[in-house]
Amino acid sequence: MSDALLSDPNGFDAEAFRREAHAFLDWVASYLSRVEQFPVRSQVAPGALRAALPLAAPEHPESIPALIEDLEKLILPGITHWQSPNFFAYFPANTSTPSLMGDLVSSALGVQGMLWITSPACTELETHMLDWLAGLCGLPARFLSSGTGGGVLQDSASSAVLCALLAARERATGGRANEEGCRGDLVVYGSTQTHSSLEKAVMVAGLGRRQLRKIAVDADFAMSPAALKAQIAADRAAGLTPCMVCVTLGTTSTLAFDPLPELATLCREEGIWLHVDAALAGSAAVCPEYQALLAGLELADSYCFNPHKWLLTNFDCSCLYVADRSALISALSITPEYLRNSISDDGAALDYRDWQIPLGRRFRALKLWFVLRREGAEGLRRHIRAHVALAARFATHLEHDPRFEIMAPPRLNLVCFRLRDNNERNAALLEALNASGRIYLSHTVLDGQYVLRFCVGQPQTAVRHIDEAWALIAGTASALAA
Amino acid sequence: MSDALLSDPNGFDAEAFRREAHAFLDWVASYLSRVEQFPVRSQVAPGALRAALPLAAPEHPESIPALIEDLEKLILPGITHWQSPNFFAYFPANTSTPSLMGDLVSSALGVQGMLWITSPACTELETHMLDWLAGLCGLPARFLSSGTGGGVLQDSASSAVLCALLAARERATGGRANEEGCRGDLVVYGSTQTHSSLEKAVMVAGLGRRQLRKIAVDADFAMSPAALKAQIAADRAAGLTPCMVCVTLGTTSTLAFDPLPELATLCREEGIWLHVDAALAGSAAVCPEYQALLAGLELADSYCFNPHKWLLTNFDCSCLYVADRSALISALSITPEYLRNSISDDGAALDYRDWQIPLGRRFRALKLWFVLRREGAEGLRRHIRAHVALAARFATHLEHDPRFEIMAPPRLNLVCFRLRDNNERNAALLEALNASGRIYLSHTVLDGQYVLRFCVGQPQTAVRHIDEAWALIAGTASALAA
Repeated sequence: MSDALLSDPNGFDAEAFRREAHAFLDWVASYLSRVEQFPVRSQVAPGALRAALPLAAPEHPESIPALIEDLEKLILPGITHWQSPNFFAYFPANTSTPSLMGDLVSSALGVQGMLWITSPACTELETHMLDWLAGLCGLPARFLSSGTGGGVLQDSASSAVLCALLAARERATGGRANEEGCRGDLVVYGSTQTHSSLEKAVMVAGLGRRQLRKIAVDADFAMSPAALKAQIAADRAAGLTPCMVCVTLGTTSTLAFDPLPELATLCREEGIWLHVDAALAGSAAVCPEYQALLAGLELADSYCFNPHKWLLTNFDCSCLYVADRSALISALSITPEYLRNSISDDGAALDYRDWQIPLGRRFRALKLWFVLRREGAEGLRRHIRAHVALAARFATHLEHDPRFEIMAPPRLNLVCFRLRDNNERNAALLEALNASGRIYLSHTVLDGQYVLRFCVGQPQTAVRHIDEAWALIAGTASALAA
Repeated sequence: MSDALLSDPNGFDAEAFRREAHAFLDWVASYLSRVEQFPVRSQVAPGALRAALPLAAPEHPESIPALIEDLEKLILPGITHWQSPNFFAYFPANTSTPSLMGDLVSSALGVQGMLWITSPACTELETHMLDWLAGLCGLPARFLSSGTGGGVLQDSASSAVLCALLAARERATGGRANEEGCRGDLVVYGSTQTHSSLEKAVMVAGLGRRQLRKIAVDADFAMSPAALKAQIAADRAAGLTPCMVCVTLGTTSTLAFDPLPELATLCREEGIWLHVDAALAGSAAVCPEYQALLAGLELADSYCFNPHKWLLTNFDCSCLYVADRSALISALSITPEYLRNSISDDGAALDYRDWQIPLGRRFRALKLWFVLRREGAEGLRRHIRAHVALAARFATHLEHDPRFEIMAPPRLNLVCFRLRDNNERNAALLEALNASGRIYLSHTVLDGQYVLRFCVGQPQTAVRHIDEAWALIAGTASALAA
């Protein structure tokens, strides 16, 4: 049994590669055909997989059939099936055939895109795809690479907001923070509904969690501009320096939209870096009818959305745009001798290592390129519209059952709801649904109330899945009440 | 033309998937068969790819043949072929058939491993594979998950050292830095040869670059324990707080090994977090004869090596081990309501989101599992030993040509050399070699001298590639001299 790619004076064995690859592809095709048959949330107990695995790595090579058998017997029971059409938890993690193929080609090319010279196509296709997406989504021209801005792929919105914060930190300190460190006087603003990644970024960047202001929200869970303005004034009066405001378009709990136009104007007046996080909702802007949701973005310094959430592209694929790329690069750039080369020194090309925390990077733009070309803009729009319509259908079911109430304005593909009952009963409902294995939902807490989240995001979810999910929810509620 | 995975009440079309997948697999097999035929370093000019691409994303779906044609015509010229057997630059980025297959299955499962519950197999297989690797490499028991430690996969050694620094920062400040921010009194130690990712981590974490001490090295480019000890004493005398020492086993420029046993003892005496970076060299420890290189690791707090560099596993796959996982988790953990679940609350399972910067994470352990099982320990050892032997063969060629000198002790798979001539002539030699497209090398600067690096790391590199590379180098040197 020899590995097709192992050090071998005879070179690459294409036939051996094809045999192995076709075996795994057949398994993948089989898995995706059967995905609906498995319990959506894994039903295993902690430690079950580890108990079934040998204690040490094998000394000798094992066969392809042995691996495939173990995928079936050991791995699948421990999978929570994010690709199931009955997965309605968290936010989705999309994938698609073209995305899988782009990722496969990326793995096979096996290039490091840290510098332009280490694979020019990796850098240039990424810049270009981010421009394509900016065009599709109607993003402001300031985020295009043709001006002073540009886009980069990050692994996640968490890393994107950290990079934005580092750029904001340098701007707020006149470029001194990288050299001298933080001083405890920088303040960052989000809302009570902002994703926890902002708090993590504030910790990581050394600003200190107590320097994060969680601004109050209105009845629709959107940040209050008046409260933000007052807090900024109070901080300035206390001798502190506002560093960054993170505005969310589509919060994690309820898809609430902070009022960007008003908040953006305030940031501009105050001279504060404005980062806009639309991790899930940003994908909807491929549809012209949703581009108005981004109004005010023309005043933002940075913007993030995740095609790996809702644009048929598998993780990781998070788009970070900046209006002034030099601010980002100066915050993240270090050039040791072993990475120097004439093209970078001349400034003739971008080096994306200076746009992110890690040095190394995959050729992630390939999967975006494949998705955009195989789907076309029309395919992406159809995908978004289908999910929005399915979420609306689910909301309609809820509205016709007086036992339930909708807890936040249904937006895009998310519906937040609860039984008109106490928190314990709602938590029991969620656990009963998830333990059934038939659907998977997650929850949040809003104003002290335990709320179920129903998010439609898997490419194969269709009307019947929505109706069956509703029947299960309604029936489970009846059973609990009995 | 419809996407097999697109929202469709008819569900997944396995036949369409197979057709598309087989087309791309055939292309991958063809590429890997031909990889030696392409110029190793891409020869395109900046902007060439972008000029050939449409300005906007297509409105309608495009065909598979159109994509494959563009891979050939547009992408391949812009690729620097890291998988070529004639790639000797930087450190390698390994891949292999089992790694490609593991990555494919990961993409298809499309799970988010942020929490145990979001796919138990993703978390448990990762913990288990890190234990397997610890066993294979003879790592100290303190890094095993069965005790207080454990391992996690990061995207890169850059992210690993940042996570280690954040844990060290919390320990050095008695857990106050996350809450209160940095105060400018924390000091971090590396050597003049430490990878730039340490400096970047110090910047990112808000300690300030001026707080990084680049300790002097000896004639073999290894950190001087005496100089480190003196610097620590001076910093303490100045009222500063030592936070972390980063010891490198196998530096980027020359694969120099800092004297870990002595440095580790010093760190223990001083009570300073010890991070050990063996990004490239760590893979060699799968061979028993190289495990002595890790002596002293039993006193380290954290340890990193990258299977994506030299263990047949494609990027990203960087192993971070910690002796006290609670230190890492307490530095990186935040739990918003929408991520809470009973199994995490009970402490019954690990949640890897608390071991890293991003929230989301791929099922990266699959590719390691596939590689370890398809190669077996014996296959991995053969791979490492072959490359070390090939690098030694190259060094022997150099030693027999008096025009050249070896600039650092050849170690493992790296040889640093130069013409006995000025820097300009050496830079010209490197550029002539890389412009030829026949081989790709990179360089460094040691004590002011421009030095060429020849690193053997691609799985298909064989004796003939070494001998042909040497013939080209010797011949190019003659041509330059003429």
